[in-house]
Amino acid sequence: MTFRVGLLGHGTVGSAFHDLLEARAPAIEAAVGQRPEISGVLTRSRGDFDDIVERSDLVVELIGGLDPARDYILRAMAAGKHVVTANKAVLSQHGEEIYDAARRAGVQLRFEAAVGGVVPVIRVIHETLAAAHIDRVHGIVNGTTNFILSEMTRTGASYEEALREAQALGYAEADPTEDVSGRDAAAKMAIIARLAFDLPVHLESVPYQGIEDLTSDDIAYAKELGLSLKLVGSAERLDGGISVRVYPAFLYGAHPLASVNGSFNAVTIESPAITEITLSGPGAGGAQTASAVLGDVISAMIPPPTLPAPALDQPLITDVESAFYLHLEVADRPGVLAQIAEILGLQEVSVKSVVQKGLGEDARLEMVLHPVLESKFKAAVDLIARLDFLRSPPRWIHVIEETFEESP
Amino acid sequence: MTFRVGLLGHGTVGSAFHDLLEARAPAIEAAVGQRPEISGVLTRSRGDFDDIVERSDLVVELIGGLDPARDYILRAMAAGKHVVTANKAVLSQHGEEIYDAARRAGVQLRFEAAVGGVVPVIRVIHETLAAAHIDRVHGIVNGTTNFILSEMTRTGASYEEALREAQALGYAEADPTEDVSGRDAAAKMAIIARLAFDLPVHLESVPYQGIEDLTSDDIAYAKELGLSLKLVGSAERLDGGISVRVYPAFLYGAHPLASVNGSFNAVTIESPAITEITLSGPGAGGAQTASAVLGDVISAMIPPPTLPAPALDQPLITDVESAFYLHLEVADRPGVLAQIAEILGLQEVSVKSVVQKGLGEDARLEMVLHPVLESKFKAAVDLIARLDFLRSPPRWIHVIEETFEESP
Repeated sequence: MTFRVGLLGHGTVGSAFHDLLEARAPAIEAAVGQRPEISGVLTRSRGDFDDIVERSDLVVELIGGLDPARDYILRAMAAGKHVVTANKAVLSQHGEEIYDAARRAGVQLRFEAAVGGVVPVIRVIHETLAAAHIDRVHGIVNGTTNFILSEMTRTGASYEEALREAQALGYAEADPTEDVSGRDAAAKMAIIARLAFDLPVHLESVPYQGIEDLTSDDIAYAKELGLSLKLVGSAERLDGGISVRVYPAFLYGAHPLASVNGSFNAVTIESPAITEITLSGPGAGGAQTASAVLGDVISAMIPPPTLPAPALDQPLITDVESAFYLHLEVADRPGVLAQIAEILGLQEVSVKSVVQKGLGEDARLEMVLHPVLESKFKAAVDLIARLDFLRSPPRWIHVIEETFEESP
Repeated sequence: MTFRVGLLGHGTVGSAFHDLLEARAPAIEAAVGQRPEISGVLTRSRGDFDDIVERSDLVVELIGGLDPARDYILRAMAAGKHVVTANKAVLSQHGEEIYDAARRAGVQLRFEAAVGGVVPVIRVIHETLAAAHIDRVHGIVNGTTNFILSEMTRTGASYEEALREAQALGYAEADPTEDVSGRDAAAKMAIIARLAFDLPVHLESVPYQGIEDLTSDDIAYAKELGLSLKLVGSAERLDGGISVRVYPAFLYGAHPLASVNGSFNAVTIESPAITEITLSGPGAGGAQTASAVLGDVISAMIPPPTLPAPALDQPLITDVESAFYLHLEVADRPGVLAQIAEILGLQEVSVKSVVQKGLGEDARLEMVLHPVLESKFKAAVDLIARLDFLRSPPRWIHVIEETFEESP
């Protein structure tokens, strides 16, 4: 059985989504029993909207902007089709019209990809926190500005220098106004506030302040006091109503958003029942947004599963490569390090760094070893443990390196 | 219309869930059209299992342990009832039997509360990442051990001292073996691996190593090199199979789990399509677990919504209290600070801290102000801007304090 997906827009995100859907179609069919298939693509130069809608079960809108996206979304829903969109502009400016139309048509409207990059903030508010009374949402919801502020902090660069760096790396557009003014973040906070507080919020009613006027002095002040300077979106329940705003702010070190660096996005949701949840991940690139869109498509195809998939036949591996820290207390005499190095070498364990510290007649060796199979490392440690110059049993601990570089 | 919930177990989590369900029932009814209601409670001394099941649409199992929880879960499902459980022991040791029984009975089985405290890792793997090929999951999934390691790092305490502190604060049990040995984390990683990799993993096949043998020396080494020492659970796809393990590890500073402190839990999921997502929040206390259980109950009542709820009538507030940083460049002469303080005082702005730095004939004032209505603060700044001894326009930035203390 096929599930027909009409695709509106074929730019960076649209073509990434097209490729991802085709690559994952067999796995999706195995998991949910239907095979998703692109039934038509609309771009400025090809495709007919009405024809594509007619041949689709669901329409994915990745054109962006207000027109003709708004019209297409409304017409697709009126024709009884589910809609998935990543369009923050249209939802923050015509949200109520679109939500009402979806309700009237009885179709699903999913828009995880419109907010927060890969961070599943919509789903967590809608589902995980369905039972909770949300007090406040704080978000770093614009990767461009977080990258610029992180660079200013890391390198001491001025705002202008960091902006040029972001542009050179593709994190900022040639005209960065939408991002650096805070307007992009304001649109996302308007959508989040609508869900968290059941309050219609139009983009134009969200006060926003950007990062254009921040200086190296501000960053220096933050460093001095252990604070982080971030562009923060906030939506919160106050006595008498709801407040939604975007502004640069100093965060104290223990705030969960304070350590979110580079082009990452993160959202902290506070509620008395759960205290808080923080979600973080890379800001939206084409591939990430495409993945969020496909997640929404799959959820629309069938209700999300509550059970694990049937088991696959694959082995559980118990001997695994890892880097290690090795701590040895030895007698401080010639030849000790050489013997240890020889044993490690015989087991193919190679040394990344070693520090030797004198302790009177003894010495302490603190080594970090490159990744090696755990069995080989332990064999080496067993041999080392038998050396007569060892003052106490060897101690060792795994070492995990960051797997993803947040900034170049 | 009522939705009848049978409750098995009435300990810390059970009674917190009972209270939360009753408190939130009206809001849930307004949102989903059915009112959840406790149809019966089973404890050691009261209630009849068969009778409660018969009068329920869904059964919540919060007894814990293997027996009689396993038997109750299987019997409730055989009777055609949905089941929500927080029981990591039974799922990590009898998971396949229970998943098969749910599949055969055609009922929902939900268990978000069994893993990771308030962190919605099950839902994110099942739904957000339905389209993704997961490569690796790293988790800090035991709040007790993370608290102990954080205390050792923060205060230089020994393992034994930090454990006693954790026990005094209720973060560790009188017999802490299950937590400090890594076995609790191993059970959670077994459940996560089952979902992420479609591989049945029994608790007994997960190698685990705890934190009992870690010393202040290890912590000192980590501090020296800017590393964090954490009890890490890992589940990853390797050439030829899957590996699932729990072990103490040094994390490099940029790893997303390195800054997770206190009794918090966090999980990082890596996949080529999304790079990575990190979810973090408080480890399970009674209230948090109850909230996760109620979220599961609501999801079982109706498919999760895809649209915002109908709008509520409430005002959008634009004048909000905030703390501020204020930066002034002034002529360095007597009476300057007094005049500024007077203007701030007239607008009810009170000063939390002030640093004055000489710059030849000028001085720089860096002040942090206590929370005050933004309108009053801006009125004060406008007045200050007109003072003749000001050398450049005043600069100000919002300040956000952490709202939740991770450790006492």
